[in-house]
Amino acid sequence: MSFAETFKALSDPVRREILQLLKNGKLSAGEIGSHFDMTGATISYHLSVLKKAGLVWETKVKNYVYYELNTTVLEEVLMWIKELKGGEDHERI
Amino acid sequence: MSFAETFKALSDPVRREILQLLKNGKLSAGEIGSHFDMTGATISYHLSVLKKAGLVWETKVKNYVYYELNTTVLEEVLMWIKELKGGEDHERI
Repeated sequence: MSFAETFKALSDPVRREILQLLKNGKLSAGEIGSHFDMTGATISYHLSVLKKAGLVWETKVKNYVYYELNTTVLEEVLMWIKELKGGEDHERI
Repeated sequence: MSFAETFKALSDPVRREILQLLKNGKLSAGEIGSHFDMTGATISYHLSVLKKAGLVWETKVKNYVYYELNTTVLEEVLMWIKELKGGEDHERI
């Protein structure tokens, strides 16, 4: 995981929307796909980019793959931006 | 300005370093360039990407162009990430 990969992953609107869907808990690839007018292959691609960027976790339960938000990397990006904006606010949220 | 452009601009390590340099106040393109082993044209390119992404302001004083951090867009990204991480923390920083 690198900031380059994280920011590149976040630059795509579909991937940002997938992250928003995962805000309320884990979802299978099929459940995620049902929100988009896209092929399963395209959704899989976006999920793999998010996974490589450390923005989602993947868990396998029998034949299903579930995805959930990894807030650790989001926290790191948050800290980087806050530090850039000015030193007055450094507490962890 | 769009989030796509903002995140793409932030995905480059040189551009992130330029933003860090501007944390302490405005700098000319020459002053920014002196921190890197790169041609003026390359620095100009990175500055133009940051400008298009709304991450820096450009001001002209006589023959000099100065750049400074635009924290408005950083604030928007911060809010987006905080909202994604969980609804419990919405105050503006």
